Amino acid sequence: MFGVRCLLLALRRCSSAPCPKHKQATRLRVCEALEAQEVAGDIKVQGWVRSVRSQKQVLFLHINDGSSLESLQVVADPSLEHRDLTFGSAVEVQGKLVKSLHRMQNVELKAENIRVVGPCDTLTFPFKPRERQPLEYSRQFPHLRCRTNTLSSLLRVRSEATAAIHSFFKDNGYVHVHTPIITSNDCEGAGELFHVRTSNEVQEPGENSHFFNVPAFLTVSGQLHLEVMAGAFTQVFTFGPTFRAENSQSRRHLAEFYMVEAEMSFTESLQDIIQVMEDLFKTVTSIVLSKCPQDVELFHKYISPAQKGRLEQMLKNKFITIPYTEAVEILKRAPQTFTFQPKWGNDLQTEHEKYLVKHCGEVPVFVVNYPYDLKPFYMRDNEDGPQHTVAAVDLLVPGIGELCGGSLREERLHFLQSRLERLGLADAYQWYLDLRQFGSAPHGGFGMGFERYLQCILGVDNIKDVIPFPRFPHSCLL
Amino acid sequence: MFGVRCLLLALRRCSSAPCPKHKQATRLRVCEALEAQEVAGDIKVQGWVRSVRSQKQVLFLHINDGSSLESLQVVADPSLEHRDLTFGSAVEVQGKLVKSLHRMQNVELKAENIRVVGPCDTLTFPFKPRERQPLEYSRQFPHLRCRTNTLSSLLRVRSEATAAIHSFFKDNGYVHVHTPIITSNDCEGAGELFHVRTSNEVQEPGENSHFFNVPAFLTVSGQLHLEVMAGAFTQVFTFGPTFRAENSQSRRHLAEFYMVEAEMSFTESLQDIIQVMEDLFKTVTSIVLSKCPQDVELFHKYISPAQKGRLEQMLKNKFITIPYTEAVEILKRAPQTFTFQPKWGNDLQTEHEKYLVKHCGEVPVFVVNYPYDLKPFYMRDNEDGPQHTVAAVDLLVPGIGELCGGSLREERLHFLQSRLERLGLADAYQWYLDLRQFGSAPHGGFGMGFERYLQCILGVDNIKDVIPFPRFPHSCLL
Repeated sequence: MFGVRCLLLALRRCSSAPCPKHKQATRLRVCEALEAQEVAGDIKVQGWVRSVRSQKQVLFLHINDGSSLESLQVVADPSLEHRDLTFGSAVEVQGKLVKSLHRMQNVELKAENIRVVGPCDTLTFPFKPRERQPLEYSRQFPHLRCRTNTLSSLLRVRSEATAAIHSFFKDNGYVHVHTPIITSNDCEGAGELFHVRTSNEVQEPGENSHFFNVPAFLTVSGQLHLEVMAGAFTQVFTFGPTFRAENSQSRRHLAEFYMVEAEMSFTESLQDIIQVMEDLFKTVTSIVLSKCPQDVELFHKYISPAQKGRLEQMLKNKFITIPYTEAVEILKRAPQTFTFQPKWGNDLQTEHEKYLVKHCGEVPVFVVNYPYDLKPFYMRDNEDGPQHTVAAVDLLVPGIGELCGGSLREERLHFLQSRLERLGLADAYQWYLDLRQFGSAPHGGFGMGFERYLQCILGVDNIKDVIPFPRFPHSCLL
Repeated sequence: MFGVRCLLLALRRCSSAPCPKHKQATRLRVCEALEAQEVAGDIKVQGWVRSVRSQKQVLFLHINDGSSLESLQVVADPSLEHRDLTFGSAVEVQGKLVKSLHRMQNVELKAENIRVVGPCDTLTFPFKPRERQPLEYSRQFPHLRCRTNTLSSLLRVRSEATAAIHSFFKDNGYVHVHTPIITSNDCEGAGELFHVRTSNEVQEPGENSHFFNVPAFLTVSGQLHLEVMAGAFTQVFTFGPTFRAENSQSRRHLAEFYMVEAEMSFTESLQDIIQVMEDLFKTVTSIVLSKCPQDVELFHKYISPAQKGRLEQMLKNKFITIPYTEAVEILKRAPQTFTFQPKWGNDLQTEHEKYLVKHCGEVPVFVVNYPYDLKPFYMRDNEDGPQHTVAAVDLLVPGIGELCGGSLREERLHFLQSRLERLGLADAYQWYLDLRQFGSAPHGGFGMGFERYLQCILGVDNIKDVIPFPRFPHSCLL
């Protein structure tokens, strides 16, 4: 199996940079070398030194190139040792890939040549070999922490999850849409907005100086734009950055975060949306677990030991659905005292969400049909009463709270128009009303916070530790 | 072949919404119905009416759901006609999929039930059946133009190209990174920046009121952040929005656009970067051509008839590489008069780029090794002279001009430090200098404008016509 693949790799990958003293060698990534049994001819591996152990007869190195959590063991003659060959240095090692006698690894690289292409100042480098620093420590070095095991595992998982989300939607016939980042709609008045201005406007603020003619913000959600597209493609999704200017110090909020959003036309039941949410969660998680078992294992072993079992429960069981009204009854009957008294018509607080998830057996819970007055204008009126609700759904997951939110959208022109008029928003949303006159199919959709999702599968407590560059707020930006 | 797939689809897709009068039907997308031969039992198709033709004996409809450029023909008894069954209305049609007698299609849907779920006000709807409007006309209706054939084809191509770019990098072992959108670095002083502020800061501007402690901008490039990640994962890419606050009315610029950027460690030759750029272009284009043949064909037939042959040439031939210095010589010897006199040390103008591409036989041209003083601080010094250059590369393509730009990065601390000090930027980029002390491997990378790429394969003249919502500048935002 490996032979053909290896040959193809050799043909494709060989760097055109000449290697002194040696003929062209097959360049392998560390993850490829680790999977290989043996390779005829020389191979070349490039990466960073994770450990150096010098013995009388032999020099041991471990090389990591970020393609896997595992490093490749290199064995070399002590004559190949060099003052710059230290922890953290960037090296190219050429030699033969041979079966290892040690039971910890299948193969090792018997070095014929070692070239240090980038030395490392180990005295000032903030990470040391074989030390596991707490995440708070690493967060101080946003430009270097990706070189630790924990953060590199995190970012590989993030990359795999990103790919799995794209393929989930593609495989199910959704069209991908880049919804606008700079926009003039605030979607739902959901949170504090960031304003976008040019230098001129910053110096001389004024109503007439807007670059875009109208005040412009960073998007809080692509939903309304997705609804436009669902009116042409039936099933659409977006997966991009969204913004909230809330100066929160919470472990659950970021000023800049990623959201997966989907919108489906010809959807007349909340159950159809719930099904997609559950499928998305389970499919993407299964893919991540199968593609990055070691990376996920690191988190479940060292960062959050309880998370492994919790995640298995989530994947194995069907998620539970309960109406908001019933949820409030459950909370009222609860034997515990809440800081916020549960009351029909009020939002569920974190303490309530936690209790509900526990009450349901620590599986994810869809809460459906929220009070009309709690929710934004675009949610579909259930026309019930006296407790008037809309067809909204939130997904609560163990340890995280709200992971997804969705709803059927109000497709009926007269319902939407009268609601927008009461809110004084009919002019601002004329284009959105417009859609309801031209073949407005029943439709609905949902959004899932991507960082929350990563926290959920890995058990990471602070949301700043699941983004590539931890910055917000109150730290200077890179 | 179809039988099993169809059964699976039926099990997976059946909407929970009850359909009056009929038992559960297999829900098929239009593209699935068009590919099917025949299906046992009832099927259900949902979409928008593209044409209604009522004859004495039979009613013909064409239904499009955005899954394909083609529509599905529906034949029905005239008794199923309804006042709301018009062009643009949203319908559900249930019936039997049968072999069509007409040679224009394989199958047609013999309707047993037609339900209008969203009527269309055809009088005010700005598009009419069987009319091909110019792109300028459609651009006036940013919320409705995706319902035209041209724009829906464009957006399907954009979605497929997005997926193909992700898989190209994934298949080649790159890790995907979400680089920050809000940042305090301007990357290269490449263009006008958008400032990001909260409402408080907009009302009371002042140095101490920054939400992020430092002035914050919308990113112009993720390159410097990718370089951080290339120091851990060897090969990384990002594909996200980038911004320029240039108030340009050009057909080639947008304030908000998407960029594909890649960064590779252990790269010592510009040739390695050039190879990835050429592979990316050819692989992604081949995938798009094979996945959306009808959508691409629409553009090559109606929008830009010259583009088909041009694109075939690009895919068939090896791209050409010429040094900047040679390019200037070619321009000086050119028999034509340029508005800007070609001169060593000056940037290439659009007229120069066009001539070079023509001179090389209308194939893409890599221009390499640009003057040191023209290029930003991070590009690698070639240490040549007296015409001092850096290891930079631009890819010029027929009809578009610059599509990609890249370089080897200056990995040597002392070169970078002295250059940043001369520019007075050493403090601002201390974190970037830092990277050069800790295992700084030779590396390089490139960026490709995604909208330019779409213009290039489809032959679309105005860049506003390859984005989902045409807005910038001087039009109000959605």
